[in-house]
Amino acid sequence: MVRKITPKSEDYSRWYTDVVQMAELADYAPVKGCMVIRPYGYALWENIREALDRRFKATGHVNAYFPLFIPMSFLEKEAEHVKGFSPELAVVTHGGGKKLEEPLVVRPTSETVIGYMYAKWVRSYRDLPILINQWCNVVRWEMRTRLFLRTTEFLWQEGHTAHATAEEAQEEALRMLDIYVDFAQNDAAIPVIAGRKSESEKFAGAVTSYTIEAMMGDRKALQAGTSHFLGQNFAKAFDIKYLDRNNELQYCWTTSWGVSTRMVGAIVMAHGDDQGLILPPKLAPIQVVVVPIWHGEEERGTVLAEAKKIAAGLSNLRCHIDDREEYTPGWKFNHWEMKGVPLRMEIGPREVKEGQAVLARRDTGERKAVPREALPEEIPALLEDIQTSLYRRALRFREENTFTVESYDEFKAIFEGQGGFVNAYWCGDAACEEAIKEETKATIRCIPFNQPDEKGRCIYCGREAEEIAVFAKAY
Amino acid sequence: MVRKITPKSEDYSRWYTDVVQMAELADYAPVKGCMVIRPYGYALWENIREALDRRFKATGHVNAYFPLFIPMSFLEKEAEHVKGFSPELAVVTHGGGKKLEEPLVVRPTSETVIGYMYAKWVRSYRDLPILINQWCNVVRWEMRTRLFLRTTEFLWQEGHTAHATAEEAQEEALRMLDIYVDFAQNDAAIPVIAGRKSESEKFAGAVTSYTIEAMMGDRKALQAGTSHFLGQNFAKAFDIKYLDRNNELQYCWTTSWGVSTRMVGAIVMAHGDDQGLILPPKLAPIQVVVVPIWHGEEERGTVLAEAKKIAAGLSNLRCHIDDREEYTPGWKFNHWEMKGVPLRMEIGPREVKEGQAVLARRDTGERKAVPREALPEEIPALLEDIQTSLYRRALRFREENTFTVESYDEFKAIFEGQGGFVNAYWCGDAACEEAIKEETKATIRCIPFNQPDEKGRCIYCGREAEEIAVFAKAY
Repeated sequence: MVRKITPKSEDYSRWYTDVVQMAELADYAPVKGCMVIRPYGYALWENIREALDRRFKATGHVNAYFPLFIPMSFLEKEAEHVKGFSPELAVVTHGGGKKLEEPLVVRPTSETVIGYMYAKWVRSYRDLPILINQWCNVVRWEMRTRLFLRTTEFLWQEGHTAHATAEEAQEEALRMLDIYVDFAQNDAAIPVIAGRKSESEKFAGAVTSYTIEAMMGDRKALQAGTSHFLGQNFAKAFDIKYLDRNNELQYCWTTSWGVSTRMVGAIVMAHGDDQGLILPPKLAPIQVVVVPIWHGEEERGTVLAEAKKIAAGLSNLRCHIDDREEYTPGWKFNHWEMKGVPLRMEIGPREVKEGQAVLARRDTGERKAVPREALPEEIPALLEDIQTSLYRRALRFREENTFTVESYDEFKAIFEGQGGFVNAYWCGDAACEEAIKEETKATIRCIPFNQPDEKGRCIYCGREAEEIAVFAKAY
Repeated sequence: MVRKITPKSEDYSRWYTDVVQMAELADYAPVKGCMVIRPYGYALWENIREALDRRFKATGHVNAYFPLFIPMSFLEKEAEHVKGFSPELAVVTHGGGKKLEEPLVVRPTSETVIGYMYAKWVRSYRDLPILINQWCNVVRWEMRTRLFLRTTEFLWQEGHTAHATAEEAQEEALRMLDIYVDFAQNDAAIPVIAGRKSESEKFAGAVTSYTIEAMMGDRKALQAGTSHFLGQNFAKAFDIKYLDRNNELQYCWTTSWGVSTRMVGAIVMAHGDDQGLILPPKLAPIQVVVVPIWHGEEERGTVLAEAKKIAAGLSNLRCHIDDREEYTPGWKFNHWEMKGVPLRMEIGPREVKEGQAVLARRDTGERKAVPREALPEEIPALLEDIQTSLYRRALRFREENTFTVESYDEFKAIFEGQGGFVNAYWCGDAACEEAIKEETKATIRCIPFNQPDEKGRCIYCGREAEEIAVFAKAY
């Protein structure tokens, strides 16, 4: 570990890349814009997946798998959709040594091919709703890529549902957004603002896009999950129809919603510090790392035996004993701090003799000796405290960097300075939104569900405005 | 459910496709050769994945994720590998609206790109072994496809390990084959023959390929999993080197091993009958389906309440109550038989009154009334019995259709008739193997690890032969 992490304050972007690589979350693949998710990063993703999948299944969803390849003509069936995605497509033109009659697109998202299948499967109202999710890889050709945040290929889940009525589909889109809020805040310890996207920021083909937006350590926003009410756009494009109770043919109403490996980047940037990652205990691949300390063979035996006994008593936690002989305890401390393990337990001959262990928190650095018999209660309590502390710290940071402004001069000053989230009235006109983006690089992240009762004046044009929007520079 | 399953005896191939589609395991995708894995089929795959993943992790492996796209030039670095895979490649030539400088291959398997990364990661013997697995999709352009058995895109796991010595790599390849045997026999209830592939049947780039071969209901063989000792072939092609304890640079020794969604097809064909699927309890998405029987609202309430109470007492089983009102009990019986649920529980007003439930086995059709209080013990015992019965039935079928022959006439007669597995001495000459294939369509499935002590005479050329090979027509 010769190389040091670039301090956040020196260069946030390099700090991020250093942490991702040095904590062994991911590495660059030989193909431009692609990444390799290394075992430690993948274990984190597995925990994210598990936490989301549990919630999907608890709300009646099932998993399935749809094909990677989509005929180019499918994308063209929904006008907005193809406009949005065609600049980002990877295209297969040859298969089995021959040129294909119709080029195939590597899925950038699966509304089209899933719509095609739903049209085959849905006959009557009895077949509805269809509540399917899939975990898969998708490809979007990106010019400027960053590990986890924007890669040509990424992993995600995409839910696709079909309903008999607009109300049901709307409810579904909002239900899934709620699940994302719950996951982000309670498991990833990242506070998020939930709301809808402006027309210019919404998903290509959606009627309404909902989003959760999080503030990163550099005060920029990161879209951490989206849920779309697709109306009948895809149902009409793919002829997803059902016979209703009066035996009349109706188009379905559909939704889609997704969270991706980008969430890993969000966790890095929401919690990490100059020593490396800080992982929320609920998602950490290792929750407690035990570092035994010894001099000589005899001590080693005693200390390791004690460490194993203690670890055995923590069997419902993800606990790891680092008993490697080729590294010093000091090296191990740094190593596991870099990897963001929430809690470290140190056990040396003195601790064995005194019947205790030293616990060190990754988030605050606090160390304390705890009697052996108290560990099975103390450790889960500490992990819970770390989980809520991380959330509170991130929330405080967001609050300290969220501003409500009255004038466009104030608005501009913020984005010329450190940046942050800015709450400002917006008249709803895309021209104002565009001008603001042009002049400040800040975009509308969302129009939050929580709105004040009063009307106001558009921060840009001064006309009457119904709603406040959250503006920020974004990933 | 108007359409009926084609009987096995009438047309095995149509029977298979009928069962896969009517049990809603999979459907045809709009792109030729691709499939959609429907929720019921995917739930089965999730259970297969879970059963394998648990075994991989218990033997020290970790999961990771490598990119979908591989530069064409990578495949060319290993001469045998590119020869084997180039006829099956899907090629991306355009990305983001532009022609790519170097075409990208959609991974048919990942030895090359993983080899490239291992070369970056491995420095010294301390970094070894690397024991990584990945769950992903792969693409092999196929001319003749069949749902699950041979599709252009399929899901699988591919393990890739790197070791300091040949012995360790050999051990690993065999350890993983053992895990496949254990999984196939104990979880999928499919007896398999383990052995090595002949030179002409081995993986493109391997030194030795090991395989497990299963007999399907039409007496054909299905390769259900393979494990390869790759020697230093990929280490040399990708420069995977390490400094040994004497500070000298050495090439690594690598392995790879995989099981795919083909396993779903194997389960269908090993156990299914003319009523549909029969799923082994350990992998069945639903282990017990409860069909409540009622006339009128009042009975409905009583019966459903009882069904729910019983199901609540079976919380460690995958239990489903089919309380739909729009279908009759008879329809439901057929439906869940088609879907291969191992055990059906019937509860009507009479059962409620008498404090019992009727249990019906999917494998034998046996029905018996069981007192309510005995259910929590009786049901797991029955499921275990079904699990072992399925295995024994499949083993008996294989034994009844496995022949040891002394003459090539006998050999030919078998493959002109019903077919089966034929044990015969083989001299090891690829010319004999090829001639046999030409004349009978039977190929060497494997050279089993278990061999007789005596030598024999090659079934084709009559020369002295060291080993017996298993011949069969294969999927």
